[in-house]
Amino acid sequence: MKNKKFSADDQALLEDIMLHRRDVRGNHFLPDLLTDNEIEKILHAASLAPSVGFSQPWEFVIVRDKHVKKKIVASFSTENKQAKAIFSDTRQQVYATLKLEGILEAPVNIAVFYKPSTAPVLGQNTMVEAGEYSVVCAIQNMWLMARAMNIGLGWVSILNPEHVKDILQAPADNKLVAYLCLGYVDAFFAVPELETLQWEKRKIIESVVYCERYPEK
Amino acid sequence: MKNKKFSADDQALLEDIMLHRRDVRGNHFLPDLLTDNEIEKILHAASLAPSVGFSQPWEFVIVRDKHVKKKIVASFSTENKQAKAIFSDTRQQVYATLKLEGILEAPVNIAVFYKPSTAPVLGQNTMVEAGEYSVVCAIQNMWLMARAMNIGLGWVSILNPEHVKDILQAPADNKLVAYLCLGYVDAFFAVPELETLQWEKRKIIESVVYCERYPEK
Repeated sequence: MKNKKFSADDQALLEDIMLHRRDVRGNHFLPDLLTDNEIEKILHAASLAPSVGFSQPWEFVIVRDKHVKKKIVASFSTENKQAKAIFSDTRQQVYATLKLEGILEAPVNIAVFYKPSTAPVLGQNTMVEAGEYSVVCAIQNMWLMARAMNIGLGWVSILNPEHVKDILQAPADNKLVAYLCLGYVDAFFAVPELETLQWEKRKIIESVVYCERYPEK
Repeated sequence: MKNKKFSADDQALLEDIMLHRRDVRGNHFLPDLLTDNEIEKILHAASLAPSVGFSQPWEFVIVRDKHVKKKIVASFSTENKQAKAIFSDTRQQVYATLKLEGILEAPVNIAVFYKPSTAPVLGQNTMVEAGEYSVVCAIQNMWLMARAMNIGLGWVSILNPEHVKDILQAPADNKLVAYLCLGYVDAFFAVPELETLQWEKRKIIESVVYCERYPEK
């Protein structure tokens, strides 16, 4: 048993890292390469994440090759055209001005997959999504560690996961959870870009917290 | 733009918090109550998580009432009986000895829901799970902040989400992502219990990392 005690200063530092973490896109990545040691440190943070039944159901594909990246960008472009069309006129105009990925600009991309276990997993019988959720916990660890290393990370979700699987020759059973872009940045935004643009407002935490149960309607 | 620089010491502290984070069950929670300030600090960490299109699609129900908790425990017990049956003979025996939740023992439970947006969300058209994944990022922030506050957290996944929704009167569209138990602990395990018991082995990170693409079969 380990009773390591953290202090109020430690809590403040953790909050500071969380507060300064941003989703970084291609207009802010610098071309500086990341070293293998830097990537290992970020992947080590992933490996420290919780996982249902200690299943550690994560796999990572590190992409640096421009030919591979260009295929991923092509998938993004196809999906992004369709995505834009979902929004109404004025929002479409704003949408068109946004840089939403940094696949080519970031020196390193990491595709993160969920690999389902072939054997039963403790805790994953009634809520089967717990496997994927474990992978997301690993990604959040990576994101925080990257920020603490002053490295930016952007999560590209405007992709067809099946296309990405084909490009990366992923096993049929694997599920793409995230496609991440990593690299040093010219600067981190002080607040999220979509907050600055008033695309969405920041929610007051009290507005999403209930006590004991939701109120009856 | 904010260019806050973190140091090697800051990175080491973050790694230390990740390294000492554990899934805590009912045999290690102390009855000490958590203050409103402590809960607010943990929920504030949640609110600092990334979310697709800055949608912040999370809702939290804080449960302290024993009557509510007992209904949740009943759901766990039903599901846990079925879960145990999945494992083969020797594993079933180990499974039966494990304490897998701390619903009654932990002074505070927090049910975490994903609330789908009624309007289109930027970045959530092709990978619709990005909404739920945002909620999981918030949960991982809570877990790390709780550990930094020397508070234990356990994620109970052996539950029927529809039963939990009924008990908490959750809106039909909401999805239960996690049911968390929080409280001070007698001690944190030095390593995960399932690792100590050799239920699963810790994976070597190199065994789950590929370069450029998966190898051809």
